[in-house]
Amino acid sequence: MNDYKEQLTEAARFIHQNDNFLIVSHVNPDGDTISSSLALAHLLKDLGKSFHLVNQDEIPKRFQFLPLADQIQIMTHMSEKFSAIISVDVADRSRMGAIDSLMYDHTKILNIDHHPTNDHFGDVNLVLPTAAATAEVMYDLAHQLQVHFHRDLATCIYTGLLTDTGGFRYANTSAKVMRIAAELLEYGVSPSKIAEITLETITPGHIQILKIALSKLEIIEDGKIAWTFLEKKDLPAKTLHDETEGIVNYCRNIEGVEVGVFFKETDDQVIKVSLRSKNIIDVGAIAKSFGGGGHARAAGYTFHGSLEEAKSILRHKITKDEGWNHLGNEF
Amino acid sequence: MNDYKEQLTEAARFIHQNDNFLIVSHVNPDGDTISSSLALAHLLKDLGKSFHLVNQDEIPKRFQFLPLADQIQIMTHMSEKFSAIISVDVADRSRMGAIDSLMYDHTKILNIDHHPTNDHFGDVNLVLPTAAATAEVMYDLAHQLQVHFHRDLATCIYTGLLTDTGGFRYANTSAKVMRIAAELLEYGVSPSKIAEITLETITPGHIQILKIALSKLEIIEDGKIAWTFLEKKDLPAKTLHDETEGIVNYCRNIEGVEVGVFFKETDDQVIKVSLRSKNIIDVGAIAKSFGGGGHARAAGYTFHGSLEEAKSILRHKITKDEGWNHLGNEF
Ligand SMILES: [Mn+2]
Ligand SMILES: [Mn+2]
Repeated sequence: MNDYKEQLTEAARFIHQNDNFLIVSHVNPDGDTISSSLALAHLLKDLGKSFHLVNQDEIPKRFQFLPLADQIQIMTHMSEKFSAIISVDVADRSRMGAIDSLMYDHTKILNIDHHPTNDHFGDVNLVLPTAAATAEVMYDLAHQLQVHFHRDLATCIYTGLLTDTGGFRYANTSAKVMRIAAELLEYGVSPSKIAEITLETITPGHIQILKIALSKLEIIEDGKIAWTFLEKKDLPAKTLHDETEGIVNYCRNIEGVEVGVFFKETDDQVIKVSLRSKNIIDVGAIAKSFGGGGHARAAGYTFHGSLEEAKSILRHKITKDEGWNHLGNEF
Repeated sequence: MNDYKEQLTEAARFIHQNDNFLIVSHVNPDGDTISSSLALAHLLKDLGKSFHLVNQDEIPKRFQFLPLADQIQIMTHMSEKFSAIISVDVADRSRMGAIDSLMYDHTKILNIDHHPTNDHFGDVNLVLPTAAATAEVMYDLAHQLQVHFHRDLATCIYTGLLTDTGGFRYANTSAKVMRIAAELLEYGVSPSKIAEITLETITPGHIQILKIALSKLEIIEDGKIAWTFLEKKDLPAKTLHDETEGIVNYCRNIEGVEVGVFFKETDDQVIKVSLRSKNIIDVGAIAKSFGGGGHARAAGYTFHGSLEEAKSILRHKITKDEGWNHLGNEF
């Protein structure tokens, strides 16, 4: 892998030497992929380049306020082919979705990303695994291209940083992220409006689900484990994936709790288990032992069996964990 | 009022010319007053000055991780008198609590704050009304005093900035705040740990109350108003003020809602009403018309009467508001 400065130079060259770009954000899009795609669109616009924006799926409502978001097309609605593709926040080729019909054999890809798992599938790769968000890479690219910063561009980059750091709350919140955010605010970005729209908005569906989930919440093992569950019958037919996402955090965030768990019955005898921990218990290892994955503080797996089985087996596993006896020594 | 640079010089002089300080944070303490007091304690320590830290009330558990927090004494447990007091995040003298017994007639006060309502009650005043937090003023003072920055000091200042900006989500989140935060992270501050402890921790009591509040949540007026209520019988005897605080936000944050309302029955025929709005409706004016106060987006009042009366009168008031017909044109 080339060093980052060289990658920036090559990415800038790719942009200067091509035109009529297809900007592709990843399937099931999050804030960073949308924001970074739109930041890139603003860069290209400033350089007088033309582009199309595409995503396989629909753009969640909470990202539709972003400047140029209305130009993102659904993949199946497109027929044109492109010679130059720029993928944004896409860790591997499959995350672009069903892109083949929009490509020639000779199509070249510039791959801009920050995932440590990125497999460098591009013809040119601009990948910074230490970046908190692809938006951070876009900021660097904007400087490399010496484009004009303005409020719309700044709003896009800020939103990517904000969402991929969980509102500057995850461990990836670096001094660099904060320095960039400071600079972006100088261009008139509204941090409160963006936080409200992207982080705080609750769907009526989420409230419904949260109500049920909280009513079933249990705190066990001397307050060290909190868990809750939703059965298939609790979930309205049109429940979005998003709408059950934050629930495990309610369990984890309770004072004194080390491990939070959310069991979601997705089918008969099929239970999706989400795990979060605060300080000690490696839930990644636990999830792995059940055939799942994740990391030490956030992980998940799918359990085949009844809810009662899922609970008792997991409870046993957590309390037999090496870290269990060390609880109480955190921070 | 002197200009800010001059105020910083005078505050530094006050510190250099005195010793054995009493550092007073405000009654019913929040994150900023505690963090800024402790930041000041670290400054004084670095200068070789001695100090005592005092608060009228108990320090909430979630701020007890802060370095030196264990040295804050409860006011009634102290008997010594002090010649030099430094008040921190205290808008007027009464917010120090029952401080008189700790003062001589000749006691001098340095008043360090950021509230626009600060009445300059100090003998020396260091008040920056445009600051997001008193912690921001402490940062400037630390530079003025040319003290040595280190992780503990940085952690205190960061926590004050974080809590008084609602996790960098309020409109007071300025470029200056973000630049300071960036610098503080360089000293090894853990943004994720601090956010987890101060912003994300939920008490078991809060979960209980939230469960009830959500079960009663109603969305009315075409989705533009969401409200909920807690009756006296719903509230456990030992409910902390904190534990009902965030509930109104669940109402306000629902997609499409403009006004969120939380009614809390505190006594027979006594109802505390909290109001929040997103973009248009001036809830400050509405609260004022009921004898309460606040600002355009967050306000409150006390209603004397039944819950049903409170609801129907408020509903009428909101829907007759000038802004009501302009809803739908926001951001
Ligand atoms: Mn990302
Ligand atoms: Mn304050």
